Amino acid sequence: MPHIELGNDLFGIRSLLKYRPETARPMGMLAEVLMRGPGTLTPGERELIAAYVSSRNECGYCTASHAASATVRLPGGATLVDQVLAGPQTAPITPKLAALLQIAGAVQESGKAVRKEDVAAAREAGATDLEIHDTVLIAAAFCMFNRYVDGLATTAQPDPAAYLASAQKNINVGYLASLDPPGTTQQAG
Amino acid sequence: MPHIELGNDLFGIRSLLKYRPETARPMGMLAEVLMRGPGTLTPGERELIAAYVSSRNECGYCTASHAASATVRLPGGATLVDQVLAGPQTAPITPKLAALLQIAGAVQESGKAVRKEDVAAAREAGATDLEIHDTVLIAAAFCMFNRYVDGLATTAQPDPAAYLASAQKNINVGYLASLDPPGTTQQAG
Repeated sequence: MPHIELGNDLFGIRSLLKYRPETARPMGMLAEVLMRGPGTLTPGERELIAAYVSSRNECGYCTASHAASATVRLPGGATLVDQVLAGPQTAPITPKLAALLQIAGAVQESGKAVRKEDVAAAREAGATDLEIHDTVLIAAAFCMFNRYVDGLATTAQPDPAAYLASAQKNINVGYLASLDPPGTTQQAG
Repeated sequence: MPHIELGNDLFGIRSLLKYRPETARPMGMLAEVLMRGPGTLTPGERELIAAYVSSRNECGYCTASHAASATVRLPGGATLVDQVLAGPQTAPITPKLAALLQIAGAVQESGKAVRKEDVAAAREAGATDLEIHDTVLIAAAFCMFNRYVDGLATTAQPDPAAYLASAQKNINVGYLASLDPPGTTQQAG
């Protein structure tokens, strides 16, 4: 049961976005630009970074959501996603993506845990500065989303199939489609 | 030296906001609504929560920035801020703020570290659901900002007086004033 009365029966972060539209709007915009905006990392690679960080933060809802998005977007599907979550350094992914996931894993621990060597390795594997930047910010942003979802003890979607349906829908409508306009904060309870 | 070529010589998060205006805009909007938007927590109390979480994340730039903002906004000034950073449970603050800082400290560790008892204690001390929500989200957001600033090894402002000047200016102009329009990502290096 959520720690506060949210006034709706949605799952995970959606229940929070509905509760507080004023903060939902910038968070949705951030997710949209980071995960789907112009860039040389594919949306599938970005979803994989998000799933990996969420998994390290043990956030069940976010892990399932972004693992599903990576699954529907990447040719390797669920098998690849499972391999990456189990350990990016042995998964069949490009050296560049493995190096970026190494950086994302460090960020999950602490910003200070990112070493010069991690960045040099990513660059050597072909990552651009902007890709390194976006990887750090995606990882940092999910350290926020994960804490938001679990810090208020939201309810996770219990039906695994729903995550895949939602991921499929996200491809078409993105991260802003389900938001309410600001000024409508629910004040139940 | 920053891990990537930012193309400017600004300090801390400002160098990153300048580098990537597309992500800067939603992050600035989130900071503005969380730290200065309508709400029953005073802006000084919110800055104190931000400083406390940043301090626990050992992010020097963010701690100094938000400690300075709390200092100029709270009657207790720098002495009070130092006492809170040293340990909120013994600082001369209201039981409600102490309980909310307890929640913020848990969020800094992990979303799952927030216990029902922490939330019950905050409510008993007079905190509303929305105040509990905003405390969790402020703490979670600074787990993002701190990781962003340190994960890319930005340069901290070396002059302590500059943080106070900047905090004073922030009271008048807020968190959106210095942002560049989107579409101007710097691609130096």
